[in-house]
Amino acid sequence: MLNFNYDIPTKVFFGKDQISVLGEQVKKYGSKVLLVYGGGSIKKSGLYDRVVEILNNANIQFLELSGVEPNPRITSVRKGAELCKENNIDFILAVGAGSVIDCAKVIAAANYYDGDPWDFLTRKAPIQKVLPIGTILTLAATGSEMDPFAVISNLDTNEKLATAHPDMSPKFSILDPTYTFTVPASQTAAGTADIMSHIYENYFSNTKSAYLQSRMAEAMLKTCIKYGPIAYKEPENYEARANLMWTSSLAINGLISYGKETEWSVHAMEHELSAFYDITHGVGLALLTPYWMKYILNDDTVDGFVEYGVNVWGIDSEGDKFEIANKAIDMTREFFVSLGLPTKLQEIGIDRENLETMAKGAVRYGEIGNFRKLNAEDVLKIFESALSSDS
Amino acid sequence: MLNFNYDIPTKVFFGKDQISVLGEQVKKYGSKVLLVYGGGSIKKSGLYDRVVEILNNANIQFLELSGVEPNPRITSVRKGAELCKENNIDFILAVGAGSVIDCAKVIAAANYYDGDPWDFLTRKAPIQKVLPIGTILTLAATGSEMDPFAVISNLDTNEKLATAHPDMSPKFSILDPTYTFTVPASQTAAGTADIMSHIYENYFSNTKSAYLQSRMAEAMLKTCIKYGPIAYKEPENYEARANLMWTSSLAINGLISYGKETEWSVHAMEHELSAFYDITHGVGLALLTPYWMKYILNDDTVDGFVEYGVNVWGIDSEGDKFEIANKAIDMTREFFVSLGLPTKLQEIGIDRENLETMAKGAVRYGEIGNFRKLNAEDVLKIFESALSSDS
Repeated sequence: MLNFNYDIPTKVFFGKDQISVLGEQVKKYGSKVLLVYGGGSIKKSGLYDRVVEILNNANIQFLELSGVEPNPRITSVRKGAELCKENNIDFILAVGAGSVIDCAKVIAAANYYDGDPWDFLTRKAPIQKVLPIGTILTLAATGSEMDPFAVISNLDTNEKLATAHPDMSPKFSILDPTYTFTVPASQTAAGTADIMSHIYENYFSNTKSAYLQSRMAEAMLKTCIKYGPIAYKEPENYEARANLMWTSSLAINGLISYGKETEWSVHAMEHELSAFYDITHGVGLALLTPYWMKYILNDDTVDGFVEYGVNVWGIDSEGDKFEIANKAIDMTREFFVSLGLPTKLQEIGIDRENLETMAKGAVRYGEIGNFRKLNAEDVLKIFESALSSDS
Repeated sequence: MLNFNYDIPTKVFFGKDQISVLGEQVKKYGSKVLLVYGGGSIKKSGLYDRVVEILNNANIQFLELSGVEPNPRITSVRKGAELCKENNIDFILAVGAGSVIDCAKVIAAANYYDGDPWDFLTRKAPIQKVLPIGTILTLAATGSEMDPFAVISNLDTNEKLATAHPDMSPKFSILDPTYTFTVPASQTAAGTADIMSHIYENYFSNTKSAYLQSRMAEAMLKTCIKYGPIAYKEPENYEARANLMWTSSLAINGLISYGKETEWSVHAMEHELSAFYDITHGVGLALLTPYWMKYILNDDTVDGFVEYGVNVWGIDSEGDKFEIANKAIDMTREFFVSLGLPTKLQEIGIDRENLETMAKGAVRYGEIGNFRKLNAEDVLKIFESALSSDS
């Protein structure tokens, strides 16, 4: 096990009607709030009205930034930062999916920066100070509600880049599984794939000695495999929504990455697809994952896939190692297919045209991955394997 | 899944040589430290000298309270509280096992209380304010390094009682697995049993819907079963010590209890044994656990034991449920025996004499347990089943 520093500061209020804590929680940190949300689904569901009612009853002043995009754009960050600076905002409340939370995080940092917040993403400027933020989650997927990361897109430059700062971890997150009852099946599928990808990025690793973390990652994968299909078919199944929601938070908050060398290559590749084609992140991850697995499968990595197949998919451990590994990868693909997720790039409107540019983009900061390191040529081969043969 | 509030504030510095952060961490919270430790094993190992060196180099003033007992006594708490009050101590550093940490926690609370700190344990007075504490752990067992609980013994009244306060969670804990290299095999065995008992107390539950938490508990049990025997035989095996150490912290910090009805009946029973006979806590837990399992096994609980047998011990899921359950319980007992732990009360000097008094003591606040509720009569039967037949 590698050395690590554990620090997960976010308080989580998990369960039905936990929104009742909102007023008191916000007041702990601020008095003038920027309320950030997306395309208006929270208005349809009634959540918006409830939040406004609570803020009003608690005499908390607030302004709004709405319309944050599913792949949140730097333009929204700029707009939010301006609102904060002009109105002396001292707390940001993000109500929505990971996109909204990510946007809120970078706004919180931009509030203390005079330059263009895109500088944080290009690593031109470090984040130095951050407004406190809180979240009310409406989609189990990114885990942003309990981690210090944010991913922002720039459509001008076709870039989707990540940044992080310890103080960008939300002070509190309200996780009420009933808020995800209205998530459509397709987004439930993509969210489940997103959670699983986060687990894979931590699970497949050369650090074999972090045994506990690997077993906990398997516990999380099993939870996704059990409840993803249930939530997909029964959107109001509380048990399924609750298990997926809590797994999504724990999958990326550090718990299964501490003490390990981690992977994160599939995310680097998928960010290129999203940056160029604005696709749903989880869809891109589900599509790429089995191709990535097949590509990196070799004598060095096969044992990891055998462990995965036996412990997660219940494949019999007797037999040829590569057969078990391949079966595990096939079961992974079949699982995503069973959730209606695409398996070929053309299905999501991506052809050969930008593959090379995207492959180069994925390794802009050097080789990606650790379990098996990938350069631009490797990434291109993975992208190409995900094209239909007739392209 | 039941509603829950997640809040684990302790920062953990995990791994070899992490003690280098000690000076800066202490300075964040205080400038006049009470250094609390046990019987002097940290002097033999050199850890004491290292701590003193770091505190001196950082110009941090400190006083000492040494000699804290393996079952920490209220007399030590009183002594520590007096030292704090007389010397304006503003931070407590516990260096040792859970006993030392528990003692430090209650001293930290007693600093702000004019009455007798035993009042906290008897629930006569609530804890209201607590000095900040930090820990350097030397034994993987109680999980006290990352939780808000403390257990204190009173030899005058033959009582061993627990208390808790959110602010008793350590501000930071330094977990260096090499500090446990010198733990003797018998204590390694008892510590492993202690960790496993914490997991059992959270795992066996009527809340079936907290699927993720149950799978994570199984991940932790598997880690103990893999590494307990290795650490027992190879005291300087870093991987084994590291996995046990991190499991001990996660087993009781809330991660696997959030969202579930929990058990804690074996702890209530064991505290009676320790209170009357001052035995090692983990030894008592290992001894009682299989008897408790056998006693509560019935039509209502059998499915939980089948899940345990199949998922943790790899027992074939085909076959009679009670057979699988009994096999799982037998394997549990055999595992403890393989670590040299006793299976009969007489082996640890306990005969029939106080069983009835102890059984009543275990339920002093009402029935214990949830998976199957136990009254004084049930507890007595469990105690009696743990006697040799010739007693």
